Amino acid sequence: MRRAGTLSFGRTLVVAPHPDDEVLGVGGTIARLASEGEEVFVAVVTEGKPPTFHPADVAKTQAEAAEAHRILRVKETFWLRLPAARLAETSHATVNGALFELVRRLSPQTVVLPFVGDMHMDHQLTFTSALVACRPHQADFPKLILAYETLSETNWNAPYLSPAFVPNVFVDISKHLETKLTAMRMFASQLREPPHERSIATISALASLRGATVMQQAAEAFVLVRQIV
Amino acid sequence: MRRAGTLSFGRTLVVAPHPDDEVLGVGGTIARLASEGEEVFVAVVTEGKPPTFHPADVAKTQAEAAEAHRILRVKETFWLRLPAARLAETSHATVNGALFELVRRLSPQTVVLPFVGDMHMDHQLTFTSALVACRPHQADFPKLILAYETLSETNWNAPYLSPAFVPNVFVDISKHLETKLTAMRMFASQLREPPHERSIATISALASLRGATVMQQAAEAFVLVRQIV
Amino acid sequence: MRRAGTLSFGRTLVVAPHPDDEVLGVGGTIARLASEGEEVFVAVVTEGKPPTFHPADVAKTQAEAAEAHRILRVKETFWLRLPAARLAETSHATVNGALFELVRRLSPQTVVLPFVGDMHMDHQLTFTSALVACRPHQADFPKLILAYETLSETNWNAPYLSPAFVPNVFVDISKHLETKLTAMRMFASQLREPPHERSIATISALASLRGATVMQQAAEAFVLVRQIV
Amino acid sequence: MRRAGTLSFGRTLVVAPHPDDEVLGVGGTIARLASEGEEVFVAVVTEGKPPTFHPADVAKTQAEAAEAHRILRVKETFWLRLPAARLAETSHATVNGALFELVRRLSPQTVVLPFVGDMHMDHQLTFTSALVACRPHQADFPKLILAYETLSETNWNAPYLSPAFVPNVFVDISKHLETKLTAMRMFASQLREPPHERSIATISALASLRGATVMQQAAEAFVLVRQIV
Amino acid sequence: MRRAGTLSFGRTLVVAPHPDDEVLGVGGTIARLASEGEEVFVAVVTEGKPPTFHPADVAKTQAEAAEAHRILRVKETFWLRLPAARLAETSHATVNGALFELVRRLSPQTVVLPFVGDMHMDHQLTFTSALVACRPHQADFPKLILAYETLSETNWNAPYLSPAFVPNVFVDISKHLETKLTAMRMFASQLREPPHERSIATISALASLRGATVMQQAAEAFVLVRQIV
Amino acid sequence: MRRAGTLSFGRTLVVAPHPDDEVLGVGGTIARLASEGEEVFVAVVTEGKPPTFHPADVAKTQAEAAEAHRILRVKETFWLRLPAARLAETSHATVNGALFELVRRLSPQTVVLPFVGDMHMDHQLTFTSALVACRPHQADFPKLILAYETLSETNWNAPYLSPAFVPNVFVDISKHLETKLTAMRMFASQLREPPHERSIATISALASLRGATVMQQAAEAFVLVRQIV
Repeated sequence: MRRAGTLSFGRTLVVAPHPDDEVLGVGGTIARLASEGEEVFVAVVTEGKPPTFHPADVAKTQAEAAEAHRILRVKETFWLRLPAARLAETSHATVNGALFELVRRLSPQTVVLPFVGDMHMDHQLTFTSALVACRPHQADFPKLILAYETLSETNWNAPYLSPAFVPNVFVDISKHLETKLTAMRMFASQLREPPHERSIATISALASLRGATVMQQAAEAFVLVRQIV
Repeated sequence: MRRAGTLSFGRTLVVAPHPDDEVLGVGGTIARLASEGEEVFVAVVTEGKPPTFHPADVAKTQAEAAEAHRILRVKETFWLRLPAARLAETSHATVNGALFELVRRLSPQTVVLPFVGDMHMDHQLTFTSALVACRPHQADFPKLILAYETLSETNWNAPYLSPAFVPNVFVDISKHLETKLTAMRMFASQLREPPHERSIATISALASLRGATVMQQAAEAFVLVRQIV
Repeated sequence: MRRAGTLSFGRTLVVAPHPDDEVLGVGGTIARLASEGEEVFVAVVTEGKPPTFHPADVAKTQAEAAEAHRILRVKETFWLRLPAARLAETSHATVNGALFELVRRLSPQTVVLPFVGDMHMDHQLTFTSALVACRPHQADFPKLILAYETLSETNWNAPYLSPAFVPNVFVDISKHLETKLTAMRMFASQLREPPHERSIATISALASLRGATVMQQAAEAFVLVRQIV
Repeated sequence: MRRAGTLSFGRTLVVAPHPDDEVLGVGGTIARLASEGEEVFVAVVTEGKPPTFHPADVAKTQAEAAEAHRILRVKETFWLRLPAARLAETSHATVNGALFELVRRLSPQTVVLPFVGDMHMDHQLTFTSALVACRPHQADFPKLILAYETLSETNWNAPYLSPAFVPNVFVDISKHLETKLTAMRMFASQLREPPHERSIATISALASLRGATVMQQAAEAFVLVRQIV
Repeated sequence: MRRAGTLSFGRTLVVAPHPDDEVLGVGGTIARLASEGEEVFVAVVTEGKPPTFHPADVAKTQAEAAEAHRILRVKETFWLRLPAARLAETSHATVNGALFELVRRLSPQTVVLPFVGDMHMDHQLTFTSALVACRPHQADFPKLILAYETLSETNWNAPYLSPAFVPNVFVDISKHLETKLTAMRMFASQLREPPHERSIATISALASLRGATVMQQAAEAFVLVRQIV
Repeated sequence: MRRAGTLSFGRTLVVAPHPDDEVLGVGGTIARLASEGEEVFVAVVTEGKPPTFHPADVAKTQAEAAEAHRILRVKETFWLRLPAARLAETSHATVNGALFELVRRLSPQTVVLPFVGDMHMDHQLTFTSALVACRPHQADFPKLILAYETLSETNWNAPYLSPAFVPNVFVDISKHLETKLTAMRMFASQLREPPHERSIATISALASLRGATVMQQAAEAFVLVRQIV
């Protein structure tokens, strides 16, 4: 018997609609899992395409992500390069297929997804397609699926009209909050000054609040989608 | 025309199941309203009764509340002295009646209530009875009803099974957070060290988070129950 | 201090997926706001396109809308001319962009939207895109966002499966119901005979019911999406 | 085969927490069922007790109910005489037992209940106890259970926090609205002047609205709890 | 008066996104209705298109469906031939139109739909479009609309985040379960071995469970969308 | 690292409102945990009291429970002896206290509760009080809280009006279903013949269905209340 109350993630895939979502929502957990010896992969679903996005900006953000992932000790990052802010105009078969292929290839025990109630349609569609890719009818499928919250997305949707993020899984990141903040600071292009939600101050406040709810110094919070034991 | 976006509370009644709930959830808003010249009243619904509660402890907490209310510039505090942790064993007629009498007497334009989804049954029943007392079929009834969140109650109920607190009203308390914290520090008997939710650090983190959601330094958040304009 | 319980809308933008939605849901409130000196703008998001819609019919409905808006004293009407009944095939970037541009240009304090749970997908997508356009991370963003109900849309969606319209904001239109009905009568092409929901009789019945819920002769009801004070 | 779309209620029991609820919510349907030859029974669960209620007032309301039931052609009225406004202080076994006994004795095919989300706790508890009394594990149990709406109760509860009444069953009462209003007028002690919800004008407006939703002149609306075919 | 508790479906249209959904969700009810003399029609909305689907496979599944429908005594099957797994890329006008045309032509009293909360987007969009096609503002519209559950779809969506299938209508299929299973066995291309959900064993287990909930040997369960009586 | 996807329950407390609930909902999981070396405790909250219950019947059911627990290898059973079917008339302090005391004494890592949406009020109140007893503000508190389903309770509550049981945690009991059924057969006084829900046939059907949803031969399903890792 091992220590109870431990969530055994095993090989883990974190899915980010856009670079930085994975750090905002899962950065501390990634750092903790890596420090405990788990292999953590990140899939970045979209990429800004011209003319809406400038290639130089896109390259900059990807370089920032690479640096952040190095700090968190992500094992490998996959760039699915679907068009950012246009997932709704991309065929579901394409999004489903890209995620299915990755799940088939990595055989993760755990998959961590953006929240279906986030304001950004790319988040909603990433969640939906990933759930299809994780259907439990295959020989090998993820045994644990969690959804994370994203500052500047999750709290801006419509209260009581879109699905609410009410966390039921709390991961203690007390020893990894600093690493998370360091990783987040790599995203110079995405960070904002407080009181913007996507600021170091707000990330810290959220970590304190989620931690306090379960009597820890800092935590990341999730909604459980499905777990099979 | 006056400046748009301003919530005109007018004469306001804040209902607290137990002393300190009103400061945890509404302290900054009370301070702001008072600073803007509004009359704010507080009703404390319950009182610890022997043998469960020691009279000396009860007196101490009430003295702390009185001090906190003085700091927030509450106009008057009403002690309804119903039995703490035993509202569920008190007849609804009694709880309804006590609140109805107060509403009739004060004719508040705004009533601020604990959240019906809080874990503590005293909170749930205070909300329910207050709503009965505010029914809109009388000559004069409150035009605005809000529900506040209470650290160490609201986040500890059952996700997706009890009503979720998803705020849709945000009151900017940037200039009043310090007053709120000062008032809260009066509650030596109720405050805890972090990472407990009922700590100065967590109250500050929550204020930052609620503020950041709407691009303010600090805010208190509410769920709208009903507004008539 | 001004009279409590008054919702200060300030400069207001009402968004209608199709002409007549704004009158069905917000006509009395527009008339009241205008009578109180507020500037109210209407954005009509879509326009019927050939071959599905005949240009003459489209022109007729737009002329009816212009007349109705004149009666309600709308300050200016914006025709976004996106394809009616085809918003779901229009890129989100396009819809978001059109609404964002308008919000940036008008800087409304209040935005009033169709309900996300309406049966018509144009209504759902207008709501969703408008919410993106109103994100609170800009220098200047709407402080009050409301959703209105539309007879012949809101009540025809799937009970308990699509988001329910349960109003929490009631605007007294007792003195403006007649103006609303007059404006609605301009829409000869859209009005139906009772017992159709889109009839003068049903509009009146709804106004009476919403009014009675809060002890007024007539009211329009809304769901609050977000308010910042 | 008989005409499709017809809800066959059969022997029907309507449960009213207090006299007049059954007319407000089900009056037209009772009249229609009776006119179609069905046997309809009414159970009035509570009775005002002294000193809160004066015996003369209680007697008056009961006489009004008797007259209303005669007009609607209710076959028999059962007075359970549990204490009004005090069901929450009555043991569940007592309330369950009283309703169970009646269900056992009448063997109704259909049971029509007040809505569990109504503001009045007597309504909530009547619903809950009646559901226990109708559990489908007995030789003979009701095959259809519906919940009705009650003006001055259902619309006054807390939006999005208490269960919402979103009707999915509509009974055409176009030919029976007048009978319903006549029956309601018997309740001189309960009726109010408009714009109170419990007025003839509001009852008529609600009937028009519920009717219009399904293209009928007048309807009563219900939420289906369970149907077995 | 006829026997109470009987759901009179009348002329019935069952809508299946893909062949076999109608048997998984409604097979026993179809068989029962046919045995009671009702006319039951099936509309299969989509068809696999090359290159994703091989014409031979498509033909095989359609032949299986034809055989299954013969066993269930379906009166006529309509093949709408919209592209499978690509309804989200098909214009709503097209899907709405195809279903509207069929409803107009058949004038069914009852329409039975896939569940809007199913994981497959084709199911969600079929539900949504069918609801538009059944709007109650026409001279003749369906009086009863039900949604069915589909093994390998309904249970795989996101708990508490997508609409939950909580059945409120139960159809006794005790005498028709064998016919349903026989029909399902025609779908050699779709059936799987247990413990897959789409297996004879799981179909039987679900029928037993749904039956037991209402004290019958076997049942199919539905969520009521709307009924007009 | 240990095998991923394993839910480490550790020392576990299963709370049953009445004897047999724990076997209906958690029997297979208890057997599996015991077989894996975990200590599992059962608390039976209520006891039938005269005159409603005959002492001989009560003794018989308790003896049956003892036998069932022996088969499942429960480490110890605690009889809290609160009055059955009368928890709602028992003070919350009493129920909270009894459960709190047990949690304090056993320090379980995992607590498994009846579902708050069950029809029986004893189930609802057991859930509520246990959640209070498990508040995460103590030195040592349960890290995992789950809610189980109970045949003949969970499916009989009001669809869409009471909290729905939509499972997100599935425990594979393929190797322990027989032990569960054997334990259940000890409850001669509680078991019924099919098609009653509380029959061996229905228990088996439910285990098959819950298993098939996650591609296992048999499973028990739970709703996660809270997990801290």
